Amino acid sequence: MKNFLDENFLLQNKTAEKLYHEFAKQMPVIDYHNHLPPDQIANDINFKNLTQVWLYGDHYKWRAMRTNGIDESYCTGDKSDFEKFEKWAATVPYTLRNPLYHWTHLELQRYYNITKILSADTAKEIYDEASAKLITPEYSVRNLLRKANVKVLCTTDDPIDSLEHHKKIADDNFEIKILPAFRPDKAMNCDDAAAFNAYVAKVEAASNISVSSYDDYLKALKNRHDFFASMGASVSDHGLEQIYAEDYTDTEIKNIFAKLRSGTNVSYEENLKFKSAMLVDFAKWDHEKGWVQQYHLGALRNNNARMMRLLGADTGWDSIGDFSQGKALAKFLGKLDTTDQLAKTILYNLNPADNELMATMIGNFNDGSVAGKIQFGSGWWFLDQKDGMVKQLNALSNMGLVSKFVGMLTDSRSFMSYPRHEYFRRILCNMFGEEIENGEIPNNIEWVGKVIQDICFNNANQYFGFGVK
Amino acid sequence: MKNFLDENFLLQNKTAEKLYHEFAKQMPVIDYHNHLPPDQIANDINFKNLTQVWLYGDHYKWRAMRTNGIDESYCTGDKSDFEKFEKWAATVPYTLRNPLYHWTHLELQRYYNITKILSADTAKEIYDEASAKLITPEYSVRNLLRKANVKVLCTTDDPIDSLEHHKKIADDNFEIKILPAFRPDKAMNCDDAAAFNAYVAKVEAASNISVSSYDDYLKALKNRHDFFASMGASVSDHGLEQIYAEDYTDTEIKNIFAKLRSGTNVSYEENLKFKSAMLVDFAKWDHEKGWVQQYHLGALRNNNARMMRLLGADTGWDSIGDFSQGKALAKFLGKLDTTDQLAKTILYNLNPADNELMATMIGNFNDGSVAGKIQFGSGWWFLDQKDGMVKQLNALSNMGLVSKFVGMLTDSRSFMSYPRHEYFRRILCNMFGEEIENGEIPNNIEWVGKVIQDICFNNANQYFGFGVK
Amino acid sequence: MKNFLDENFLLQNKTAEKLYHEFAKQMPVIDYHNHLPPDQIANDINFKNLTQVWLYGDHYKWRAMRTNGIDESYCTGDKSDFEKFEKWAATVPYTLRNPLYHWTHLELQRYYNITKILSADTAKEIYDEASAKLITPEYSVRNLLRKANVKVLCTTDDPIDSLEHHKKIADDNFEIKILPAFRPDKAMNCDDAAAFNAYVAKVEAASNISVSSYDDYLKALKNRHDFFASMGASVSDHGLEQIYAEDYTDTEIKNIFAKLRSGTNVSYEENLKFKSAMLVDFAKWDHEKGWVQQYHLGALRNNNARMMRLLGADTGWDSIGDFSQGKALAKFLGKLDTTDQLAKTILYNLNPADNELMATMIGNFNDGSVAGKIQFGSGWWFLDQKDGMVKQLNALSNMGLVSKFVGMLTDSRSFMSYPRHEYFRRILCNMFGEEIENGEIPNNIEWVGKVIQDICFNNANQYFGFGVK
Repeated sequence: MKNFLDENFLLQNKTAEKLYHEFAKQMPVIDYHNHLPPDQIANDINFKNLTQVWLYGDHYKWRAMRTNGIDESYCTGDKSDFEKFEKWAATVPYTLRNPLYHWTHLELQRYYNITKILSADTAKEIYDEASAKLITPEYSVRNLLRKANVKVLCTTDDPIDSLEHHKKIADDNFEIKILPAFRPDKAMNCDDAAAFNAYVAKVEAASNISVSSYDDYLKALKNRHDFFASMGASVSDHGLEQIYAEDYTDTEIKNIFAKLRSGTNVSYEENLKFKSAMLVDFAKWDHEKGWVQQYHLGALRNNNARMMRLLGADTGWDSIGDFSQGKALAKFLGKLDTTDQLAKTILYNLNPADNELMATMIGNFNDGSVAGKIQFGSGWWFLDQKDGMVKQLNALSNMGLVSKFVGMLTDSRSFMSYPRHEYFRRILCNMFGEEIENGEIPNNIEWVGKVIQDICFNNANQYFGFGVK
Repeated sequence: MKNFLDENFLLQNKTAEKLYHEFAKQMPVIDYHNHLPPDQIANDINFKNLTQVWLYGDHYKWRAMRTNGIDESYCTGDKSDFEKFEKWAATVPYTLRNPLYHWTHLELQRYYNITKILSADTAKEIYDEASAKLITPEYSVRNLLRKANVKVLCTTDDPIDSLEHHKKIADDNFEIKILPAFRPDKAMNCDDAAAFNAYVAKVEAASNISVSSYDDYLKALKNRHDFFASMGASVSDHGLEQIYAEDYTDTEIKNIFAKLRSGTNVSYEENLKFKSAMLVDFAKWDHEKGWVQQYHLGALRNNNARMMRLLGADTGWDSIGDFSQGKALAKFLGKLDTTDQLAKTILYNLNPADNELMATMIGNFNDGSVAGKIQFGSGWWFLDQKDGMVKQLNALSNMGLVSKFVGMLTDSRSFMSYPRHEYFRRILCNMFGEEIENGEIPNNIEWVGKVIQDICFNNANQYFGFGVK
Repeated sequence: MKNFLDENFLLQNKTAEKLYHEFAKQMPVIDYHNHLPPDQIANDINFKNLTQVWLYGDHYKWRAMRTNGIDESYCTGDKSDFEKFEKWAATVPYTLRNPLYHWTHLELQRYYNITKILSADTAKEIYDEASAKLITPEYSVRNLLRKANVKVLCTTDDPIDSLEHHKKIADDNFEIKILPAFRPDKAMNCDDAAAFNAYVAKVEAASNISVSSYDDYLKALKNRHDFFASMGASVSDHGLEQIYAEDYTDTEIKNIFAKLRSGTNVSYEENLKFKSAMLVDFAKWDHEKGWVQQYHLGALRNNNARMMRLLGADTGWDSIGDFSQGKALAKFLGKLDTTDQLAKTILYNLNPADNELMATMIGNFNDGSVAGKIQFGSGWWFLDQKDGMVKQLNALSNMGLVSKFVGMLTDSRSFMSYPRHEYFRRILCNMFGEEIENGEIPNNIEWVGKVIQDICFNNANQYFGFGVK
């Protein structure tokens, strides 16, 4: 019987332990995609208590609380910070087998040295102990990142963003690279003409380019893409139900754009054509600049209209969709590849039923030009847990080269989420360790250790060109 | 080497054994959805032999026999009961790794104290021994239910059903609650206008309400819904390929109904609109009365037209479909939720590729009002086996709170099927036990034992409001 | 700690070892579907070196090399054989956890008695040692097949093929049966009218039947089907994204054919109707002759247009698709079954998300007439690895009778691929062994051993009627 969450947590044999403790553990962290707020890093803030860092923005925890029958006032509502924490603490024992249970206790251990189990009984003492630490300089967000051995992190930013916080951070000579990433979801969202035009106005303001045609619009957005590059960005990202890969002509797109600008909503077909065109244009810029482009595919979002009205997006009402992915993805990537304009690409998939599709799709465009050019991204969102990671790693291993994988990222809004890199590494080491013990991999610990270090850090460092020493 | 099907069957470590024997085993059974025939309970019949109880209505066994090359005359045909049994017995050794192998021997052990392995060689002695017991009073169907420690069971009934057998059972003061459930599949099936009108005539007769408009039809069906409630029902059920969630107007539905009543078949679009409307109307009644509504999604039925002609439905020619589930499900549940008319809901899914979709879909509508309000139902039909249960439990655990799960149901036509609750419990205990042993769950046996007891019984008792002490 | 790839490779307990070494290992091989080139067998050629036998036609290895950043010139290009081998050798250590790693070392052990691990360091010595053996008579392709204990193998042949090589092999009285299989993919491919007519001209030439109508076309193709039968064929095969099962009339098909013959491309609907009709016609011939028909479903092919232009098809640019499979498959099989014209059928599935759909679909048409009449084929292509095999075997076991499974086939272009039968058998034995040790299967080693021998050899021998003693 192993103790809960001891030093060999998730490591089920001696070889796995060795791989983790002697190879994986020491590697620094590159968190190449997350949603951390750059202003908090710029201002190097401190959180005032455990509720603020844990519960203010975490829809994972809110979903669990709601499922446990906790009223919304304790999730996003006006209850006091401690009242909210008490309800969360009372929910934790009911999250057994959910990743929240592991994350919660990993975070308490790694950041606060607290090994107690969180529950209604221990809520007060844990809240007080952690909160007392949080207000000290050692727990400023920059120190939290240092504690997690982060070397580079990429935030997620709208093209209209001024990146003033990234500038402030760079000007401070903060030794951890905090880089912006270009996420133009709103720029291609033409579902509502009025909202679209409001957004175009912001692009005009940000770029100082007046937009009266689709060409102008591209020029203005490209201006922002260039600006992001000048601020150190080398990564773009897109959040989509599925890839749009409709056929279109330049004339059609110009006309659709004109129609939108006249304030008229476009048809379903026009909508798809427009998004298809923009995806291709964005992708070409990424290729020109040698960036890495990321596609997050398969989320069915904002399903609860009542709560959406009350709380807005990203508050815990999203789920996994069952969209058709194969043909459009092949068509889109193929269109870029055929003119040799396909940038390095990472595909993230939210429905594990599509894991094998994704793991083989990347092979269609890995042409030998760059090792691991097209990547199948790590288990994302609902799949960012042991079962989800194991399935992604197995699909990738069986159908591609896991040795060339760029590995883990947090995709998180939370400064407490870095132990998820540790979580991933333990799962990875256990997987290799088990197969060595079973005689499925030769017992060459140095070689396997190197492969694991590559997945933990070296591959990403090389792939993104971050040049961390 | 463990002995086959000993007391620690499926329990692969000491903690799992402890969880099962000290916590799970003793819990009574609530079988909140099955297809048991109420007349047999009302009349407290005895089966005459093992073939009658095992082979007369079990399409699982027929499928296995046919795959083993056994002629139809031994499945549904006119061979003698013992001839049929012999063929089944000869098939059993070929069912290794199929749940039938486990179910068969579990049922022989639990009901008849027979630990021999069934095969051609042992067919005669097992048949004789079990059949001799079956004709004794101890083996009447009510005693079979008592033996299985059942406290409540819900049958599956058509709105036009008189529920006379349920009344007889209640009048007998049978201590096990035998409750009807409202399954209006035929009421919304407008694929064939003639068949639909024949059904409407039966609804008119049952409700004593004349139906000349859609409103009348709703009134008549609601009358039956009320009647079911008066007979103790608190559960509805729907068997659908996928949720229908087309947009429609009241006028459209009135016109479609009029068209059907005139004897004209409706178009594909009209068909979908009609079914979409009826699903919403049924759901509102369920919400009004505080019922639990169940949706069984994903079966591709009656695929073998030749055998369908010979034998009718539910004779073993159904399979798992690959329907699109996400968007319509979100739209349907969202439509009810937005006016706060979403009842407690259980989603059952037949295609394991959709497990994660379902496990996250429920979270979109778990709003804190009721713990575990929206449930992802236990592995259903083809998935009601170890691998299917493990996958459902893992998806639910990782993406929701398994601790709030209402657990197992038989969904069976057989009075011998209750050991499946035991089967589920063993799998559940093994899962938690293994994670405790591995250090993934704290070794707090009292707490984990309580969670297991909740899943086995307490959660269902509270969720359905059965009030079993 | 087990040694890598020792005699108990993949066998994780004593019972599994016993099942493999005492039952499975000794069974001969029936390889009922592969892509071996009959001319090489007819001429009993020797390969000149390890590159020729391993790398000349293996798109699995090319994909891995490209993903490892190796230039195309070392895959399909003009580098020397040894330069190519060196790059492959350097890639092998990066294929850990990919089946290529196991296959490579299994093949080195079984064919060349080489137990060294292949890498850049060992490339030269392994290349020299294996190549020296390859040029000896003992390593002619017929001797390679003898070494693998193959008794029957079925190649994959176009209806227009003269089968001259098969004739030569038969005339030689080669003791291993080398049978042709009828694969009419091109015969039904009407995507391009010009290409279609070019193909029809070849059918005319091969059959010596002039084709001016659809009836003529069927007559000419049936003539080839008859000819294949006369040459010992009893198997057909189809490679399709999904089954086509559109409704059509004879007149429509005649008109579509006439349109094609006039050189006009047909519409999307006409295309589907035409393919639907041809599939039915082919299937009826298979039934008439008592053949086994195979359907390979779910591949998304030729996704990389740039490389397709350079290298042609089957060079490593295919992937797993997410096609809708259920309804059309049920409709197609049902249409044949309803007139009792459904031949023995094997369904191969490329997307593991559809495993359970396939495993239950076969049950819809297993009617007792032939044991295991409809089969769910073994893990195919990307799924022909441990994880893929385990999933296929589990789905089949849980939803059908694995005991009636016709088992493994290589589907390979390589004479070195026969250790994959061993690989499959080890996985199969481990699966049964583990469940015996766990008490989930009775410890009746003779019976389980027989079931395993059936799956390895006897079932296929009986199902295909090969009559191997």
